[in-house]
Amino acid sequence: MHIEELATPAVLVDLDVATRNLDRMAGFCQKHGLGLRPHTKTHKSLEFARRQLSRGSRGLTVAKVGEAEVIVAATPGEILVAHPVFGAAQLERLARLAAETEILIAIDSDAAAEAISCAAARLGVSFGILVEFDSGFRRCGLAAGAACVALARGIERLPGLRLRGLMTYFGNIWGSEEERASQIRCTAREVQRAVEAFEAERLPLEIVSGGSTPAAVLSHLIPGLTEIRPGTYIFNDMNTVYQGACSLDDCAVRVLTTVVSTAISGQAIIDAGSKTLSSDPLSSGPKSGYGFIVGQPSVTLTRLNEEHGYVDITRAGPLRIGEKLSVIPNHVCACVNMHDEVFIVGGEQVIDTWKVDARGKVR
Amino acid sequence: MHIEELATPAVLVDLDVATRNLDRMAGFCQKHGLGLRPHTKTHKSLEFARRQLSRGSRGLTVAKVGEAEVIVAATPGEILVAHPVFGAAQLERLARLAAETEILIAIDSDAAAEAISCAAARLGVSFGILVEFDSGFRRCGLAAGAACVALARGIERLPGLRLRGLMTYFGNIWGSEEERASQIRCTAREVQRAVEAFEAERLPLEIVSGGSTPAAVLSHLIPGLTEIRPGTYIFNDMNTVYQGACSLDDCAVRVLTTVVSTAISGQAIIDAGSKTLSSDPLSSGPKSGYGFIVGQPSVTLTRLNEEHGYVDITRAGPLRIGEKLSVIPNHVCACVNMHDEVFIVGGEQVIDTWKVDARGKVR
Repeated sequence: MHIEELATPAVLVDLDVATRNLDRMAGFCQKHGLGLRPHTKTHKSLEFARRQLSRGSRGLTVAKVGEAEVIVAATPGEILVAHPVFGAAQLERLARLAAETEILIAIDSDAAAEAISCAAARLGVSFGILVEFDSGFRRCGLAAGAACVALARGIERLPGLRLRGLMTYFGNIWGSEEERASQIRCTAREVQRAVEAFEAERLPLEIVSGGSTPAAVLSHLIPGLTEIRPGTYIFNDMNTVYQGACSLDDCAVRVLTTVVSTAISGQAIIDAGSKTLSSDPLSSGPKSGYGFIVGQPSVTLTRLNEEHGYVDITRAGPLRIGEKLSVIPNHVCACVNMHDEVFIVGGEQVIDTWKVDARGKVR
Repeated sequence: MHIEELATPAVLVDLDVATRNLDRMAGFCQKHGLGLRPHTKTHKSLEFARRQLSRGSRGLTVAKVGEAEVIVAATPGEILVAHPVFGAAQLERLARLAAETEILIAIDSDAAAEAISCAAARLGVSFGILVEFDSGFRRCGLAAGAACVALARGIERLPGLRLRGLMTYFGNIWGSEEERASQIRCTAREVQRAVEAFEAERLPLEIVSGGSTPAAVLSHLIPGLTEIRPGTYIFNDMNTVYQGACSLDDCAVRVLTTVVSTAISGQAIIDAGSKTLSSDPLSSGPKSGYGFIVGQPSVTLTRLNEEHGYVDITRAGPLRIGEKLSVIPNHVCACVNMHDEVFIVGGEQVIDTWKVDARGKVR
């Protein structure tokens, strides 16, 4: 089927571009001796997870227990829950998974360690644990050094927990090459501090895991890292473009939309709004607009309602009703998460439909 | 089950509050002799749709064909698709629905009229049609007057279309009482212009439909309207609060979350981010923050990542890991649309789980 025959709005994934993105990251990691544990939050799909694993990924990353429950079907290897899971019901579900596969959890508190240990004991399983430290993003994670060591000592005393190393998320590394180079030096300093403190106490450093797509291909500049966890790299989006980490041609996802109204002068309305693209603003670059309209450099997607996208055509000729526009979303993870399936395309042909298996697994 | 036992994040609907909201709007419409055709985009649930119908709603409103296909199970009455549907596949699906139930479509172009007529002819059905006019919101809709009449004449000539009246969306009416009063006068003028042009040409005015929750209870000030299509009113949200259209006590939805990290000073992280609450900003009021944290006036939800919410606690005492926070979302429609189910609560007890039946029906 030609993509123009698809009902819109529809999320299209160019399989060649996604495959190239996967190969490139796998090649980078292989070249630098880094492990790759892709974050599946971007695609939430077993098909894509399997393609990541077949390229040598040592396991997968998820944010939520519900995602782990779905994605486990793709992997015989480890799953890292890169979120400080808390709550008896969720930990019990995770313990059930841990009976069949190695589950790693990254935590930054004694409270989390104790709750996980309880769940492990109840089901007679064990979890791998990473201590999360902050390397500058200031979201989760203890200060590198003594606080991490103290938590590690607590973890070692608790039954059902096997301390395996450290984790950090460096989502703060993006911008121009100079900006990223400067940020990476700060990050590297924090990683070094965390690693040295563990070394000094002979704590396990089997895994030192670092995150984020924009920083991924600079990760070799951070000594001590054993692996990275990029997610967005598989598809990329306008944020990744403006973060300096990819080109438009590396964006694998385009949302196909249709012009449905041209009644207001200077404007066209498309059938994709925030329930299709998400309201996520651009995190860098011009910081305006809700996606890039491919091949139409003089029209801009200026505003979204739930099911309407407002296209400013004042600097372009009129659009006609029924015309198709392709939009590269600002934030592809938020976009894909609202859709039950994505259409896999090769050139102009739809070659398959893949389920977004872990969509909406918020718990 | 007590709500504190729920795994988080979880969308809770206080059934008493939602019921009061439904009763209040039904009472308002009854008092003023206005029809009520609730927009189901907010709840996307058959259970809530049935409650709207049992209070005298004359039919339901949807934005997308896929929503109509789901919601039809709740209603023996009319469904209005308040979106200028375009595309052969979608119109064919809609024509199949039209074989069993009255489907109304609001349009603002000859192109849409012709496409709908083709679909009707192919399946041997007919559609009710409303001409959409712009009353100031500047999204869809022709200018009130001659342009609407010209489209109406075109509709009357096309087989399979039955012109039934006019539709407009006045999403621009909100703010202080004075602001709303001033805006409602402008809207009323446009409605009058549209109605008079149809009257002068003896065009059908069986339905003159107007939209939006913030303006709903001012709709009686717009002469000529036969019905309103509020959606958000069933749950309300922080936008509705700041638009001056409800109080905090009228917000039926709260997202239950758990504090999962307190490692960064002055901050707590909850397990609800943009994939739970949506990134929708506040459209009015302070225009900052991603939801109101109930009962904690000195803490604010300042930032979201996909699965992390950043709570600023610099003006409050520390929060502890495991503590539950309830968040009233900025935009409840965008929030509910990401969840497979909502938890129905009465007081502190969970009394049921209802499916968000039409979630993700973007086409």
